[in-house]
Amino acid sequence: MTSYSSAGHEVRIRCRSKSLTSPTASLANGHIQANLLVLPSEYAPDFRDLCARNPVPCPLLASSDIVGDATSIDDKTLIDVDGGHDFDLRTDLPKYNVYRDGKLIESKTDVTNDWERDHIAFLLGCSFSFEGALEAAGLKPKHWEKGCNVPMYKTTMRLAPAGKFTDGQWIVSMRPYKSEDVERVRDVTRPFREMHGEPMAWGLGAAKELGITDLGKPDFGDVVEVNDGEVPVFWVCGYLYLSSILTSLVD
Amino acid sequence: MTSYSSAGHEVRIRCRSKSLTSPTASLANGHIQANLLVLPSEYAPDFRDLCARNPVPCPLLASSDIVGDATSIDDKTLIDVDGGHDFDLRTDLPKYNVYRDGKLIESKTDVTNDWERDHIAFLLGCSFSFEGALEAAGLKPKHWEKGCNVPMYKTTMRLAPAGKFTDGQWIVSMRPYKSEDVERVRDVTRPFREMHGEPMAWGLGAAKELGITDLGKPDFGDVVEVNDGEVPVFWVCGYLYLSSILTSLVD
Repeated sequence: MTSYSSAGHEVRIRCRSKSLTSPTASLANGHIQANLLVLPSEYAPDFRDLCARNPVPCPLLASSDIVGDATSIDDKTLIDVDGGHDFDLRTDLPKYNVYRDGKLIESKTDVTNDWERDHIAFLLGCSFSFEGALEAAGLKPKHWEKGCNVPMYKTTMRLAPAGKFTDGQWIVSMRPYKSEDVERVRDVTRPFREMHGEPMAWGLGAAKELGITDLGKPDFGDVVEVNDGEVPVFWVCGYLYLSSILTSLVD
Repeated sequence: MTSYSSAGHEVRIRCRSKSLTSPTASLANGHIQANLLVLPSEYAPDFRDLCARNPVPCPLLASSDIVGDATSIDDKTLIDVDGGHDFDLRTDLPKYNVYRDGKLIESKTDVTNDWERDHIAFLLGCSFSFEGALEAAGLKPKHWEKGCNVPMYKTTMRLAPAGKFTDGQWIVSMRPYKSEDVERVRDVTRPFREMHGEPMAWGLGAAKELGITDLGKPDFGDVVEVNDGEVPVFWVCGYLYLSSILTSLVD
């Protein structure tokens, strides 16, 4: 049996061997989790600009060190040294959505055959990174207890456009908390500035203002109930707004 | 007569002597224009965080070099050398709004007597900075021709909260352009990244999405007509959202 020297490396290896294909909430606790976006290099300058203008939804952590190389990123400190910098962005994530001409054409566990010499990868901070800190503070996310994915909702908030990226919208993830815990939840997540940081909004009024009409019908992820005495707390989410951006590239 | 060695310095001197008390659109062309926000120092860390999370509405250019000193900022390059770094933030702007306990209590041309030893000043980039570039590109803003202020509207877009600043909303300024000029307008203003950069949205559909129901009734500034063949182009504006932030400090 292989022995794994770090939790981050272990998750990558499990993805690579296809033994992990589900969302990564609660895994590799204490490590930064990232979302991956791969684009043809011609879109890279506009995408960097989009991230600079929208750092809460698009917190850019790192990007390809060399165009076309799926095994290098420009911030080496992000890959755990104990894992021997062993990573391949085409195989080490649990699942990939492949878009062509702005349409989702396939979900798969390996994009080695889709990777092109002109591709650039971007890693964006993910809110799963701060869930361990919430748990450590006695504020365990409810979807951990349920063993499901976090519920996510489309909002009416728009990204500030940048070049070819004109139609992005904000997606939020939701975790229910007691009203009296909201300020502590804000304090715990605030330092995770490159993983969406503190919540965007909280409460039923805020849900309505964000354009969310039914918490029981998330647009993505799983249903998590908001019980009496609890309020929905919304964090900006970096994963799924991307589909609207990619679609806009073609319009 | 005093001779003025730079256009920026001249505008400051005109404000200081109260000979200029109106909006500064079209003045000191080629210079950066900034909005001013002054806060008690206890709010400074949260406000810096707010700017970092919302760089398009809150493009932080500089702040007080020393708490309580209205004649120093931490980025010396912003003050024109030809003006001998001669400035006083309490007198060199055409008008100030004074808030106490979250309420606008006064508009005045000099805040020397309101300035406290614990105050910190923040300078935020203003979209008036790029209007000269639009004019130079043959895209003169219509409110220049009319000699009035730019129309501004409240939107339903919210700032990402930061600490005590929880209730900010985006205000947009509007300049009408021909549909076929929109891409050029975007290109001209995009490089002005610290002065709100390229537009947030354009077109009548976008206005509706931003929650703007009647272009003929701006919430601030003056009415500027959108004629046949033109579309409203909206830039994020840094000036007036501040009232909603200051109000939220008290809640």
